[in-house]
Amino acid sequence: MEPADTLILGPLVVTMGAEERILDTGAVAVRDGEIVAVGTREELEGCEAAETIDATGRLLMPGLVNAHTHLGDSLFRGLVEELPLEAWLERLWISEREFVSRESVELGARLSIVEMIRSGTTCALDMFWFPEAAADAAVGAGFRLVTGPIFFDFDGPDGVSVEERVATGERWLERYAQEPLVTPCVQPHNQLTVSPEGLRAARDLADRAGALFHTHCSETATEVRQTVERFGRTPAAHFHELGILDERTVLAHCVHLSDDDFARIRRAGAAVLHNPLSNLKLGSGIAPVARMLEEDIPVALGTDGPVSSNDLDMWTAMRFAGLLQRGAHMDPVLTPARDIVRMATTIGAEALGLGDRVGRLAEGYRADLILIDLDRPHLTPMYDVYGHLVYTVGRDDIRSVMVDGRWVMRDRGLETIDEAAVLADMTDLASVIDRHAAALDRA
Amino acid sequence: MEPADTLILGPLVVTMGAEERILDTGAVAVRDGEIVAVGTREELEGCEAAETIDATGRLLMPGLVNAHTHLGDSLFRGLVEELPLEAWLERLWISEREFVSRESVELGARLSIVEMIRSGTTCALDMFWFPEAAADAAVGAGFRLVTGPIFFDFDGPDGVSVEERVATGERWLERYAQEPLVTPCVQPHNQLTVSPEGLRAARDLADRAGALFHTHCSETATEVRQTVERFGRTPAAHFHELGILDERTVLAHCVHLSDDDFARIRRAGAAVLHNPLSNLKLGSGIAPVARMLEEDIPVALGTDGPVSSNDLDMWTAMRFAGLLQRGAHMDPVLTPARDIVRMATTIGAEALGLGDRVGRLAEGYRADLILIDLDRPHLTPMYDVYGHLVYTVGRDDIRSVMVDGRWVMRDRGLETIDEAAVLADMTDLASVIDRHAAALDRA
Repeated sequence: MEPADTLILGPLVVTMGAEERILDTGAVAVRDGEIVAVGTREELEGCEAAETIDATGRLLMPGLVNAHTHLGDSLFRGLVEELPLEAWLERLWISEREFVSRESVELGARLSIVEMIRSGTTCALDMFWFPEAAADAAVGAGFRLVTGPIFFDFDGPDGVSVEERVATGERWLERYAQEPLVTPCVQPHNQLTVSPEGLRAARDLADRAGALFHTHCSETATEVRQTVERFGRTPAAHFHELGILDERTVLAHCVHLSDDDFARIRRAGAAVLHNPLSNLKLGSGIAPVARMLEEDIPVALGTDGPVSSNDLDMWTAMRFAGLLQRGAHMDPVLTPARDIVRMATTIGAEALGLGDRVGRLAEGYRADLILIDLDRPHLTPMYDVYGHLVYTVGRDDIRSVMVDGRWVMRDRGLETIDEAAVLADMTDLASVIDRHAAALDRA
Repeated sequence: MEPADTLILGPLVVTMGAEERILDTGAVAVRDGEIVAVGTREELEGCEAAETIDATGRLLMPGLVNAHTHLGDSLFRGLVEELPLEAWLERLWISEREFVSRESVELGARLSIVEMIRSGTTCALDMFWFPEAAADAAVGAGFRLVTGPIFFDFDGPDGVSVEERVATGERWLERYAQEPLVTPCVQPHNQLTVSPEGLRAARDLADRAGALFHTHCSETATEVRQTVERFGRTPAAHFHELGILDERTVLAHCVHLSDDDFARIRRAGAAVLHNPLSNLKLGSGIAPVARMLEEDIPVALGTDGPVSSNDLDMWTAMRFAGLLQRGAHMDPVLTPARDIVRMATTIGAEALGLGDRVGRLAEGYRADLILIDLDRPHLTPMYDVYGHLVYTVGRDDIRSVMVDGRWVMRDRGLETIDEAAVLADMTDLASVIDRHAAALDRA
């Protein structure tokens, strides 16, 4: 065998591969950004490698996939709290319109990427204004991002008119088509903010580019009621009738589904992107995830943007996803820990169209992986690995993170992004945003 | 003014005092374990002090109060997962009976205290076998603990027979009466495992010692049903009829209350100890906390033991408490962040009978306080202080912790307990527990 670039020796390996093997003392070899071997320490310790890492006593697993977020929202993290949803959105959008620019969104995305890398997320699906800002931030930081043109039926803060969105989107998709770390998607906001014609046009654009199709769906009861009033059908039925609901469609939220909606989504092969923290915080409700799983609908996991869930911590999202159904249905055997880990790794990757490359430690997969410290008081003792990952491990237990074969964090030091500069720039901008918000509150 | 022992200058101070002031650039002075001044940096920077700490850019607040836990349970953290409640308990109790001893409980308590200190908790209410083990561990580590004799109607692994419990408890309360860091309580398990006579005897013991009275109440629907079958009344009604429900009574859980129960608990002035993670994980349900708050019932917050909630992280408990009611009731203005911070500080302290000494940064209060780093990506920017504390701050943001005027953690280094030795001892013992569990599974 050719020498590897990196050989990681000795960790407990949670493969999430086809057989979901757990290797007590395992090893992984990486060459040219790809995983070339996964096995026991004994099997691999003879491998030649440019760099060998002793990871004894640590845990190695695939990086987490945050399947729904809005990275630029970190600009407004916690700016608006304790308001009913409509007033909350109205208030937030005033600040967004004032402060969203190509430059500020890139700063927000860079901050969010710092936070995601530190917490062991290696891939995210982002929906925000100026998707090129997040894409460039991701490429610069060596982070894997799914993003692309967004659609609204009004002129946004990006200065793109409704008429121009398809052409602008087309150029965007061409521009990033060859970028290995950027997976393109097309993302209309939802069925109330984008007309049927707009949704069809967005879908045609996605089809021409072979891109993922991402939208919000049935987040709140009010949204579903308004959709039924306007179109005579639920959001999922609307998407189905428009011919835009299929296995390349991913639907964020799905908190309020009719019986027929479950069947429609299952038959279409679409995936649901579950965001438990945001759904709770905004009072949207508790998504019927137990039933989705029962009906074999793929459920991936997201944090939503930091304006509604406040941070981008997938460990907290896993914990909420893993506990919420049990309490809501008073059934302690729902959503076993292993299923939750799947949501945050393999199923997330599959939902985003990356299931053959990301989300597993397996030969031929891209090397997106994380090393976790286990010598922490809250992780001692360890009897149940999946239980630990869902119910106890947290963002600060992550020691090192590799994306596409490149270390982006080593021993807690970021390798590809100047964290101090990002924090300082954001703090400066936030003081302006804060003064503006305070003036609004006085007015 | 006499010189202070410690002067902390410059942090953002969240006082949780009577006026709940927030000082953007504040200061706190400590002498003889007591807070002697709280003010702005300007007001206090002239103070003489043996030690002055520059805490600019950090956040200073009262240490958190974990109002319900079982510290020794860390021995079995995650040992039993994914089972229905009855099978889960049965399985767990086999291991408890085999491995619970004075020595192992002290090890478990020491591990739990390490975890609590690291995560910014400075006071906990513990219910477990051998309460002297946890009390001694707390005194050794300089940690504030509320604990005391437990009551069951069967001979426990502590070798104390049912007949001996009152006399043993009496001696226990005498032994720790003069220990400043230990606040005594008397704790029968619940109304199904302790007879009416046993409950009364426990209560008499608490009254003679002036101790807090702590029990589980209405944790599961099954428990309530069985109580009604056996006694013809709900658990809270049972306690009321026995004359043991009053303002010195604290009730863990209260997930399933009747309308009359709310009124009974309110009129009695008893406090509820809410444990959202454990209630969800075990499928007990979602406690009616929004209604408790509406009815002015004091609600304190706990993690429950690490066997059901897996860790002792009060930040996660705050986040669950802060989000759960909103989702369950589809109302985004329930449980504002400030109310949740109160639950974890002032209300927790008041519930445990420590409201005049702990839970606030105020003159005359004991110096139980924590310093939090703010220069973290998930904490940038900061617009809303209480929102940050509930929705974003996590255990690893805690930099330094003081209990009763003594630093127990400084710049993340533990000062009073040998963490590495505790982790190593626990890992050794856990391998024995694990082999025993594996043999059971094979049998």
